[in-house]
Amino acid sequence: MSTLHEVGPVADVRVTSQERLPVLVRAATDADWPEIWQTLEPVFRAGETYTYPRDISEAEARAAWTGVPHVQVLVAEDPTDGRVLGTAKYLPNHPGAGSHVANASFVVAGDAVGRGVGRALAEATVDSARTDGFRAMQFNAVVETNESAVRLWQSLGFDVLTTVPAAFAHPTAGFVGLHVMHREI
Amino acid sequence: MSTLHEVGPVADVRVTSQERLPVLVRAATDADWPEIWQTLEPVFRAGETYTYPRDISEAEARAAWTGVPHVQVLVAEDPTDGRVLGTAKYLPNHPGAGSHVANASFVVAGDAVGRGVGRALAEATVDSARTDGFRAMQFNAVVETNESAVRLWQSLGFDVLTTVPAAFAHPTAGFVGLHVMHREI
Repeated sequence: MSTLHEVGPVADVRVTSQERLPVLVRAATDADWPEIWQTLEPVFRAGETYTYPRDISEAEARAAWTGVPHVQVLVAEDPTDGRVLGTAKYLPNHPGAGSHVANASFVVAGDAVGRGVGRALAEATVDSARTDGFRAMQFNAVVETNESAVRLWQSLGFDVLTTVPAAFAHPTAGFVGLHVMHREI
Repeated sequence: MSTLHEVGPVADVRVTSQERLPVLVRAATDADWPEIWQTLEPVFRAGETYTYPRDISEAEARAAWTGVPHVQVLVAEDPTDGRVLGTAKYLPNHPGAGSHVANASFVVAGDAVGRGVGRALAEATVDSARTDGFRAMQFNAVVETNESAVRLWQSLGFDVLTTVPAAFAHPTAGFVGLHVMHREI
C-alpha cells in the first residue's frame, strides 16, 4: 500500500503555526525500523500515552510494534526527503470470532506533531484496514489526558464507548482513565 | 496458591438439579495440561463464547492459555477425586502503565456447568489477583449472548462498562456484541 494523502483543512485539531506537512503513507519495511524507533522511543520513554514499559528495550519495542502475528505496519514519510514523520500499526483486536475488528496504534514524531501527520496516518490506516476486510476499528487504551488524540479520533468518527476508570498510571497525573474508542469502517 | 472454596447459596445463577460440587482452586501445574485441554477444547471448538480460532491446535491453545508472559493459571478440581472441573487464567490487561489491571478468562467443564465451579474459580481468581497487587479486573470480550456468564460476573460485582457492537461473529446468532466488564478488586 502506498497512498499520497493530501491533508486538507483540519478545523477541529489545534494546529501550530507551522505549515502542514505533505505526507506519504506507505507500508513499512525492515529498513524503516531505525527511524520508526526514533519516533517511538521518546513517546514510550515519556510514558504518558502508551502502556508499553517506559524502560522497554529496542528489541522488545520492535517485537511489540512490528512482530505481532498479523500486524500491518505503516509509516508516514515526508515525500520531499523521505524522513519518517510517524508510524501506525493495525491488527485484529481479537483472534477468531473477533478478528473482523481491527485495533490500531499511532505515534507521530515529536517535531511533526500538530502538522496533520496523525490525521493522514489514521485515514490511511482506516482505508488499509477496510481494504483488508476489517469492519470496524477499536482502540482499547486511549489515555484520557491525551486530549489532542481524543479530539483527532472523534473528528475521524470514533466514539468513546467507555472510559475504564483509573486504568492508566500516568507519570504526573496519577491514575487516569483509558477510553475504549470505536468506529465502523 | 491453594484455596478451598466453600460454595455457598447462589441465588442469582441458574443452578441445575445437580448438587453443587465441592471445589478446590489451586495454581495449575504442567501436569494439569491434558485435563485443562479437555476442558477448553469443546468450548473453543464451539466458538460461542471465546475469540480463539475454532480450529486452534492443542499447542496453540496451550501457548495462549498458559504461555503468555506474566500469566497465572488456576484449576478448579474436585477434591474428592482430583478431577479438573474448570480453569482460569489472569494476567496484566496491558503492560507498563496499565499493568495494575488484571484480565481474566474462565472455562468450566461441560458436565460441571451450573454447579458453582465458575463462581468458585472467579472468587479465587479475584483473590489471587488482589494478592498479586492488581487493583481491578477487566474482561475485554464477554459475548453478550453468554447470559449465564454475564449474570455470574454481575453477581460478583462486575459492571458492563460498554458493549462493543457486532464485535463477535457468533456461529448461529450472527454478529453480536462484546461486553467490556470491570470491577475494582
